[in-house]
Amino acid sequence: MKLLGQALIGGQPVRGAGDSFRAFDPQRGEHIEPPFHSVSEEQVNQACVLAGAAFDAFRASSDAQRATLLEAIAGNILDLGDELIERAMAETGLPRARLEGERARTCNQLKLFAGLLREGSWCDPRIDPAMPQRAPLPRADLRYRLIGVGPVAVFGASNFPLAFSVAGGDTASALAAGCPVVVKAHSAHPGTSELVAHAVVAAVQGCGLPPGVFSLLPGSGSHIGQALVRHPAIQAVGFTGSRAGGTSLMATAAARRQPIPVYAEMSSINPVFLLPAALAARHDALAAGFAASLTLGVGQFCTNPGLVLGLEGPALDRFCAAAAQALGGSAAGTMLTAGIAASYQRGVQALAAQSEVSTLVSTAHTGCQGGPALFRAGAASFLAQESLSDEVFGPAALVIACRDLDEMRRVAEHLEGQLTATLHMNDADMDAAQALLPVLERKAGRIVTNGFPTGVEVAHAMVHGGPFPATSDGRSTSVGSAAIHRFLRAVCYQDLPQPLLPPVLRDANPAKVWRRRDGLLTQE
Amino acid sequence: MKLLGQALIGGQPVRGAGDSFRAFDPQRGEHIEPPFHSVSEEQVNQACVLAGAAFDAFRASSDAQRATLLEAIAGNILDLGDELIERAMAETGLPRARLEGERARTCNQLKLFAGLLREGSWCDPRIDPAMPQRAPLPRADLRYRLIGVGPVAVFGASNFPLAFSVAGGDTASALAAGCPVVVKAHSAHPGTSELVAHAVVAAVQGCGLPPGVFSLLPGSGSHIGQALVRHPAIQAVGFTGSRAGGTSLMATAAARRQPIPVYAEMSSINPVFLLPAALAARHDALAAGFAASLTLGVGQFCTNPGLVLGLEGPALDRFCAAAAQALGGSAAGTMLTAGIAASYQRGVQALAAQSEVSTLVSTAHTGCQGGPALFRAGAASFLAQESLSDEVFGPAALVIACRDLDEMRRVAEHLEGQLTATLHMNDADMDAAQALLPVLERKAGRIVTNGFPTGVEVAHAMVHGGPFPATSDGRSTSVGSAAIHRFLRAVCYQDLPQPLLPPVLRDANPAKVWRRRDGLLTQE
Repeated sequence: MKLLGQALIGGQPVRGAGDSFRAFDPQRGEHIEPPFHSVSEEQVNQACVLAGAAFDAFRASSDAQRATLLEAIAGNILDLGDELIERAMAETGLPRARLEGERARTCNQLKLFAGLLREGSWCDPRIDPAMPQRAPLPRADLRYRLIGVGPVAVFGASNFPLAFSVAGGDTASALAAGCPVVVKAHSAHPGTSELVAHAVVAAVQGCGLPPGVFSLLPGSGSHIGQALVRHPAIQAVGFTGSRAGGTSLMATAAARRQPIPVYAEMSSINPVFLLPAALAARHDALAAGFAASLTLGVGQFCTNPGLVLGLEGPALDRFCAAAAQALGGSAAGTMLTAGIAASYQRGVQALAAQSEVSTLVSTAHTGCQGGPALFRAGAASFLAQESLSDEVFGPAALVIACRDLDEMRRVAEHLEGQLTATLHMNDADMDAAQALLPVLERKAGRIVTNGFPTGVEVAHAMVHGGPFPATSDGRSTSVGSAAIHRFLRAVCYQDLPQPLLPPVLRDANPAKVWRRRDGLLTQE
Repeated sequence: MKLLGQALIGGQPVRGAGDSFRAFDPQRGEHIEPPFHSVSEEQVNQACVLAGAAFDAFRASSDAQRATLLEAIAGNILDLGDELIERAMAETGLPRARLEGERARTCNQLKLFAGLLREGSWCDPRIDPAMPQRAPLPRADLRYRLIGVGPVAVFGASNFPLAFSVAGGDTASALAAGCPVVVKAHSAHPGTSELVAHAVVAAVQGCGLPPGVFSLLPGSGSHIGQALVRHPAIQAVGFTGSRAGGTSLMATAAARRQPIPVYAEMSSINPVFLLPAALAARHDALAAGFAASLTLGVGQFCTNPGLVLGLEGPALDRFCAAAAQALGGSAAGTMLTAGIAASYQRGVQALAAQSEVSTLVSTAHTGCQGGPALFRAGAASFLAQESLSDEVFGPAALVIACRDLDEMRRVAEHLEGQLTATLHMNDADMDAAQALLPVLERKAGRIVTNGFPTGVEVAHAMVHGGPFPATSDGRSTSVGSAAIHRFLRAVCYQDLPQPLLPPVLRDANPAKVWRRRDGLLTQE
């Protein structure tokens, strides 16, 4: 498929009316053809108006129709074949195996939501039957279901050009919910975005759905995204990116005449707690596992383990030495963009410059290359110095030596919200883990035991979320089937005649969908 | 019980350090003893710190313990007996029967959440078992549940001194979720608030729960509420009141270092659509039902039917005449506060002053008395004049005459978010209803058929919510068991040892709680 460098507005390729820009190959250090054209605010408006107009028809589609749509998107993405992988490799510097894995994950994600739709109870159907004889007042017939909130703006993420981008988890869950999607393509992978967008558009057309269900808006600069979030047709926002970017969209959404929810996944340092017995028994193995997790994908994961906590002493020293050795031997890797590499280098230099931070590993950085870095400080310094809690996006981590378990707990309590918290523990650490657990539950969306936080399973029980600033809305997850709840709201129907009720709420329940009747689950 | 005019901070009566104020009897037009004392910001801080400190212990209580707490609160409220009813009558001007009914509703609400806790699946437990043999990568054991978000600030509402106040739906659902509650008492019913707060505190003490689980903060003026919402320990806000009050709290919450969700139920005009066949067949009965709903409780319900839409013609004229006759014969009633009465009078005068609005009924107002008012305008005027969509809190309504069903649909599309939308229809109106329904689903939280929106059942399938400005968060309901979801967030446990898992997620499931295993419901 020849890349056109165009927007797709309601399924139609349209040349953006704004400035042109090109993708950049961070591996080769050169721009790539063709030029892409940023859309204008008027083109943002066109896409949003089409999305608004498509909403009622799209949400009236059956669960099976939307499941078919999601499966068709997955099939079309696979059909793009190697062209997609090669373009994504050029635009991101990510290796083939990683991108092939990410493509499989993206398709599995689409299929997970298709399965959720086919199961049917995602809309939480509830029926409280009428009680005409009740005294002092009769009860009306009340029926409840969740429906989509309306058109959703999705922002592609730089670090997952497939799984958190045009047809990633935000888009899959929004489409599953019956919400049209307007994607702001990430300017770092516009060609990948265009290819995937064509896969989505073909599926929308193939399923006979209204074209406004999906649009792709290329653009460089934040004004396009801001215009998108301001648009009155947009009813929710999905974003994965920086804290500055996310909080800026939150402010825009809150300042609207009608404020809307923003689901921004932003910033996390993913603390790893090395409990004493585990550290004493396994310091070398823990160091090897940690170094592998830290450097995976050049550290460019939201769940990268950027903070390690242990009790000061010989076992922690040996962990640090082994980790430093493993990391010192790791080659620098190509980062996603020149901007990310520059920001990483600034972050590493700022840590190295702190007087109370010692540098265990530092590697030279040039251009888009980023090498691992490891630092160490005492818990007292960490507690006193707010900037030590800042995320450094890339393969850098800070080891915090705590005097005792109480101080470790104080450090945990001091942390901002996190996507993950990890416990390394042996049986002898059970009490220490028990004492930390309530703090970690308050701080993080996912608690990992004896593993590392990188690697986020797409599953029903996954939470990829967490209190601010991990996300803008700690009630949500952006991975796993619960992600659909971000884009749903409840409607109650009181005494509505059966023919007007949505099928899932009618008396007959031929599909045997699980529903709550007076609060109790039944397939009746 | 002698009223002390004091705050209850972590269960302890404390004299507020701020200004003193007294309640006002709107029926007699005089202040009532004793004086109450507004809390200081430092006292707000004390309550919030205690709430934060109590959170881990409180949420570690079993579902059965919290169910017992809620049932004990209900019992203690009943035990307050007539003293509660009489104080509430004096402070609100509401009649005995209404307050006795509201007390029953408040207790039922507490019991609904107790039942939800005893059923057990409220926390949406999910288990995706490990798949150690899966290729290319094994799957970890993933378990998911919802936990409380943290301490919740609750603002009592003036119009439901029991059911939406100190131990109302917000408090009941927050306590059920395991969240400590800090209540800002409404200054219009401080004595009622103090009595109910003692009932809550006694239940907290009787159940052996930490005292920080509940505090009551009296105060007049908005600075106390603002300080409460700014406090870092507070993690969510429940509010029922004016649009100005709600949006002000939303702005404060969004401006925090860590933004938090605000659930404000604010403003709704609750459109009633009189479809042609129903209007032709039943104009007089509809007018009688409408007049009764409009004047119920002197129109001081969030779900008061403030907008009526019909097709212009003789049937609508006869509806208007019959409604005007019924309303013209209604006596004025005592409104809740002098402020509400004055605001109502301004709203009615503003409508009457519009050149394109004709006044069908207007009654004189004096002091805290408010009488019904009915106006009529054409749809074109309504579409052109934004202020005609503003809520007038009280027994006033505007009838909009539409040229045809298309214009009626355009008016529906023009509306802001609503708590309710009502359809009056006969079989011959089925197509018209079908055409309106998708619009109403987007606009309202509850769609009522052939009834009136006043009267909100406390049930599992209820939605008392709706898109902004009906509420600040259209994904939520403040009535019914789904209200608990406002105060919950998800946590995932990856490979956590069984003894550390919360009981509801352990392999053994002796209580046979419904859980999702790989996405499918099971009691296994």
